Amino acid sequence: MNNFIFQNPAKIIFGKGSISVLSTEIPIDKKILVTFGGGSVKKNGVYDQVKEALKDHQYVEFWGIEPNPTVETLREAIKLAKNERCEMVLAVGGGSVIDGSKLIAAGALFEGDAWDLVRKPSLYKSSLPLATVLTLPATGSEMNQGAVISNKSTKEKFSFVSNFPLFSILDPEATFTLPPFQIACGLADTFVHVIEQYLTTTNQSLLMDRWAEGILQTIIEIAPKVQKNQYDYEAMATFMLSATMGLNGFIGMGVTQDWATHMIGHELTALNGLTHGHSLTIVLPGTMWVLRKEKGDKIIQYGKRVWGIEHPDKEVAVKLIIDKTENFFRSLGLKTRLSENGIGKATIDEIVRRFTERDLHIGENRSVDAMVTRQILEKVL
Amino acid sequence: MNNFIFQNPAKIIFGKGSISVLSTEIPIDKKILVTFGGGSVKKNGVYDQVKEALKDHQYVEFWGIEPNPTVETLREAIKLAKNERCEMVLAVGGGSVIDGSKLIAAGALFEGDAWDLVRKPSLYKSSLPLATVLTLPATGSEMNQGAVISNKSTKEKFSFVSNFPLFSILDPEATFTLPPFQIACGLADTFVHVIEQYLTTTNQSLLMDRWAEGILQTIIEIAPKVQKNQYDYEAMATFMLSATMGLNGFIGMGVTQDWATHMIGHELTALNGLTHGHSLTIVLPGTMWVLRKEKGDKIIQYGKRVWGIEHPDKEVAVKLIIDKTENFFRSLGLKTRLSENGIGKATIDEIVRRFTERDLHIGENRSVDAMVTRQILEKVL
Repeated sequence: MNNFIFQNPAKIIFGKGSISVLSTEIPIDKKILVTFGGGSVKKNGVYDQVKEALKDHQYVEFWGIEPNPTVETLREAIKLAKNERCEMVLAVGGGSVIDGSKLIAAGALFEGDAWDLVRKPSLYKSSLPLATVLTLPATGSEMNQGAVISNKSTKEKFSFVSNFPLFSILDPEATFTLPPFQIACGLADTFVHVIEQYLTTTNQSLLMDRWAEGILQTIIEIAPKVQKNQYDYEAMATFMLSATMGLNGFIGMGVTQDWATHMIGHELTALNGLTHGHSLTIVLPGTMWVLRKEKGDKIIQYGKRVWGIEHPDKEVAVKLIIDKTENFFRSLGLKTRLSENGIGKATIDEIVRRFTERDLHIGENRSVDAMVTRQILEKVL
Repeated sequence: MNNFIFQNPAKIIFGKGSISVLSTEIPIDKKILVTFGGGSVKKNGVYDQVKEALKDHQYVEFWGIEPNPTVETLREAIKLAKNERCEMVLAVGGGSVIDGSKLIAAGALFEGDAWDLVRKPSLYKSSLPLATVLTLPATGSEMNQGAVISNKSTKEKFSFVSNFPLFSILDPEATFTLPPFQIACGLADTFVHVIEQYLTTTNQSLLMDRWAEGILQTIIEIAPKVQKNQYDYEAMATFMLSATMGLNGFIGMGVTQDWATHMIGHELTALNGLTHGHSLTIVLPGTMWVLRKEKGDKIIQYGKRVWGIEHPDKEVAVKLIIDKTENFFRSLGLKTRLSENGIGKATIDEIVRRFTERDLHIGENRSVDAMVTRQILEKVL
């Protein structure tokens, strides 16, 4: 086990009816910038609940944070927060709205341009307090410090690390009317977040392994229930809790992480607009196959404990386990090949060009460079 | 899943060599009361490391917080903290030192008598900041708000809830020289903490079940390694992490809890001086057997997933699973019968008298009253 420091002060308020606590959780004298995505919260009742809870508060609304939030949009929100002298940000939406709001909360206290905050981490000093009402389980952003911000003009997508939300409200009923494709991507995203922290080398932490496997098993167990009936409160609550626990640091104590699949997936999203969770279901089988030498023992452990797959021939076992994983993604209704999404050699060449230019070496062992990335993407063409 | 609120802001600094961070984690201008137990930290090098780290700080030492810390001792420490105008408490020791220091930190800011703070929770307002250096994995006190305080004169033992430690330092090397009996009790204590939050009714939270089972599996896996060689860093680190994760709220989200075994065990400690972890290994098999009707389905799940035990006859399965659990405790070198510890009918009568007088109804379903407590204790006589 590696030495580590762990702290996560975010408060989680979980369960049906919990949006109403906004009225008391946010100090009455704080002027709030309330941020939204495209408007689905007006159809599922969340917007009305937020408005009712904040009826005695002073707030302004900012609408239109898009999936893969762009700095272009967020600059507008930052301008509004500054002009209105907002003292707090309340993000109401999924991971994109929350991610974007992290940059808004930081940008509101920053003199320069928001993209500089993303590209030069040392410029980040502080943020306005941020709270969230989560409507789409997937990214864990409601309980971590991270965000991913896109730049429309440069077609780039980068991580941004700021502060934990003060509190996040997770009401599973807010997820009942999500589009099934979003739910499928959320399940896949959660699954791969756990894989990134787990599918490394064995025997780093017996406990963290068990907890990661526990989330994977849980996602596999509830996926068919969620697909069958997304008004199933228990299943959606379990999905929501799993997504948060999958990326809040709880399964990352003292272990190495990988994230190569995510970094390659981000490029697919930036270049071809693939939904984030969907980009991962394509890349992961390729990553697992190409890195099967260095990840072999952990793939075997994963296959045995999570899927019950065993085979005396290790290479055969690995193949079976990757196929099982890929079939799970397909059972969610997602594609697992680039060509199925109209993505071909040109995109691969561009990603390889970018990774070469940035001289990237990613993954647990920094073994994934531009050439290995080409192998991964060609494997899943 | 029940609605819940979760927040745990304590910072964990984990790993070998981490005691030295005290020098920077504690502000240089804060006067500290450093609290200790009986002196084992002078033998294992922890005291020297703490002294070295605090060489530029102002502090006073308080020695002698005993196992099952008594309010009589803690009153002395509170007096010292007040007289010396200490602004922070640093607990260096196991769960007892940390528990006691929680009352010291609260008592230092309280006008009245410390026992009133324990008995009347509404009197508690605030505490001095508390930090800890953990030397004995077991209670989770380093990452939760709870404490258990004894009263020597009345032979009582009660819970006290105050604040989270600001930070806790967990260096597995500090555990290398612990007495094997303490380690055995720590393993048992961790195991039963998890059981109290898990062995209730099924299908409350699929994820919390997996995480609880994960800790139990991990404890079972490392127990023989720890017993064989307590200088095994990886095994001791896993034990230490498991103990903290077993009682910091991470496995308790949205689920009911039990704690009947603990409450009965506390009486055995208060009346007969049994070490806390040891009291649990005696009571738990009795609780499981007497409550096998209401806990049956969960016992079956526990047996199957944690021990791999299955049997078509449910009553037989339950018996096998309880025996397996009891044998695990015995494999740690601990006793599982009252009579083996010289405890007999007189103690049972006194506990039943106390529970009757306090009209207690404890456990998940409040079904454990004085009469059920008698059945439990007579089962493990």
